[in-house]
Amino acid sequence: MQVNQAEDRKQYRFLDEEAIRQYVKTAGLFQGQVAIEEVSDGKINHVYRLAGDGKTMIFKQAVPYARVVGESMPLPLDRVRVEAEVLKEYYRILPGSVPEVYHLDEELAVIVMEDMFPMQMGRTALINGTETARFASDAGAFSAKTVFYTSDFYMDTAAKKELNASLTNTGMRKLTEELHFDWPFNFHETSHFEEGMRNDVLFLSQDQRLRLEVAKLKHKYMTKADALLHSDLHSGAVFMSEEKTVIFDAEFACFGPFGFDIGQFIANLFLNGIGLPQFSAKRYEQAREAWYSFVDTFSTLWKTESNEHYTQLDGYLTHVLDEIFTDAMGYAGCELVRRAISIAQIPDLNIEEDERERMERRKKVMELGRHLILERHHIHSLEELKGWFI
Amino acid sequence: MQVNQAEDRKQYRFLDEEAIRQYVKTAGLFQGQVAIEEVSDGKINHVYRLAGDGKTMIFKQAVPYARVVGESMPLPLDRVRVEAEVLKEYYRILPGSVPEVYHLDEELAVIVMEDMFPMQMGRTALINGTETARFASDAGAFSAKTVFYTSDFYMDTAAKKELNASLTNTGMRKLTEELHFDWPFNFHETSHFEEGMRNDVLFLSQDQRLRLEVAKLKHKYMTKADALLHSDLHSGAVFMSEEKTVIFDAEFACFGPFGFDIGQFIANLFLNGIGLPQFSAKRYEQAREAWYSFVDTFSTLWKTESNEHYTQLDGYLTHVLDEIFTDAMGYAGCELVRRAISIAQIPDLNIEEDERERMERRKKVMELGRHLILERHHIHSLEELKGWFI
Repeated sequence: MQVNQAEDRKQYRFLDEEAIRQYVKTAGLFQGQVAIEEVSDGKINHVYRLAGDGKTMIFKQAVPYARVVGESMPLPLDRVRVEAEVLKEYYRILPGSVPEVYHLDEELAVIVMEDMFPMQMGRTALINGTETARFASDAGAFSAKTVFYTSDFYMDTAAKKELNASLTNTGMRKLTEELHFDWPFNFHETSHFEEGMRNDVLFLSQDQRLRLEVAKLKHKYMTKADALLHSDLHSGAVFMSEEKTVIFDAEFACFGPFGFDIGQFIANLFLNGIGLPQFSAKRYEQAREAWYSFVDTFSTLWKTESNEHYTQLDGYLTHVLDEIFTDAMGYAGCELVRRAISIAQIPDLNIEEDERERMERRKKVMELGRHLILERHHIHSLEELKGWFI
Repeated sequence: MQVNQAEDRKQYRFLDEEAIRQYVKTAGLFQGQVAIEEVSDGKINHVYRLAGDGKTMIFKQAVPYARVVGESMPLPLDRVRVEAEVLKEYYRILPGSVPEVYHLDEELAVIVMEDMFPMQMGRTALINGTETARFASDAGAFSAKTVFYTSDFYMDTAAKKELNASLTNTGMRKLTEELHFDWPFNFHETSHFEEGMRNDVLFLSQDQRLRLEVAKLKHKYMTKADALLHSDLHSGAVFMSEEKTVIFDAEFACFGPFGFDIGQFIANLFLNGIGLPQFSAKRYEQAREAWYSFVDTFSTLWKTESNEHYTQLDGYLTHVLDEIFTDAMGYAGCELVRRAISIAQIPDLNIEEDERERMERRKKVMELGRHLILERHHIHSLEELKGWFI
């Protein structure tokens, strides 16, 4: 990976297509003609596929705000450095599980990386029902490996603290705190739902018992630095093919509680299954595959790779896995509620054209989310949730 | 505060008395003759009282290892910068509660600060029975204020993460992890106890249920960044006078769980009360004073100074205080066990000359520690511990 250090002191500027062509030539990434195609969903960054010299690459430039909202939602350009560092870390832990990073320019907030085409994007595959057989267990194993290898059970205590310090990612963290734990539960102006469920959303924001549990989950997310999280592991951050599953979009990464990523991933399977009832049973099974793959992988690493002597104690692994499951249910609940009624909407819940039907599904997602948040300490297996899907 | 930046690139060297005289003159701290007296207990650093120009100052230089052990226990010189930063932070939060820092030299690992003479050192006062009426409640309030004001309930999320990153203090953390959670429970070669209790110490190290609870407390200490901890708040880190109570020696400071400091402080009162039975009832009362002062102060700040909107929820404060108490009991337990049988011995448990009597007290400290660690989730008030003291 080439790195242009920020010390160059060239100023940030947004690159148009002509500037991109010039840039990649100067950086030695392409020699000849380069064709450019925008491929981002446009919510946060500018992402292009560059083609030339018989190869393709993905070129991503951040702007200092979220595109979907505008300059009123500033976002730190440093997220591009964080993303590159985290992808590198993931590549080291599990080669081939993330796109390879070819080039990072901290000053211009540019990252150039491997093009995963023609792999399917996860959310699209789930909506079309064309997902692969392996993606759920791959994602579970990915989460287990990445959190175990960046935890105090494996890493040297000093190296871990330094990695954490280099990935504080404060601006993106703050956005996660608001998006997951504040806005969905505060009847926020950015909320999104059918008018017919206005009272349901209002009552949710007045449920003091629920809000107390959300407050605890928020504080744990803010303070518990168990391991390096992807922190945005929804189905749109996954590419899949028959050969492999690849995770991308790591710009929200930071240290946090073990159960956050796997919880968010499972929630996105639930969301798709409730939004598109024809997939309901399958998504429930895939959630189980993801979780049991997480447990198997984490347990194997615990037994074979631990550097913390206390991991040899009877009962310790069970205790840690129990806490991970409880947290995963809680964070899954927050993801369900926010995707149902808050700003970060997903097509899974919005392509149904019948408003009444769409609203009923949205309500069910919100209700399952509420249930997971409130009852997480009393739910001991995914099998207890079967009735919601089958 | 003057700061000599590390950028000067002068190399670290140990300053002898003549070099210190030259140094403080060059730094403009003294003009005329300077008298030097060593005042450290010599366990870790070199500390001197400098007198001249009608004033005194404390001059502290770190060596790159722990003096008590030697070069086989390397310690980072950066701890001096951490100490200065933390004292400054504490001074901002609670002026007069820590010595004022006059001068920091990162490269030479030198800190020059306010001389608290003729205040009494806390441990000495507790051993002599000359402690002040206010020290326990002052220390409880100090802990509550410093953790509240550096928590996510008060600080801006980005500022807090950046402060945490600037105070990783990895080398000192590692030492705390070993001293509190590993060596005391592993029948370590550095252990210290009367030969007659060899089996008790051996059995303790074979108690798998106890070790599992210690493992959980260790992992929480390593991962839960609730707030800035002093992380070495034993009675030897306290100065007291009728007018005020001052905390010093912040070189172990780092972010950690809310309950750690207050737990360690309470443990040191318990230790003194069991080591010197004539003070037993008084120390128990002072432990209660410290805890209730912590609760009062923390609760008042929660209600009046919070910036986190969820703190207005009914039941949230109770939940947070319950968790702090549970953790405080657990960390107090670890402190009791380590001071009883591990390397960091204290006079409170060693001045009794009768070996049998001394050993019985040491055993009792160890047993109370074990009880607190194992039963912390079932102990709901200090009053439940009265039988150990009265």
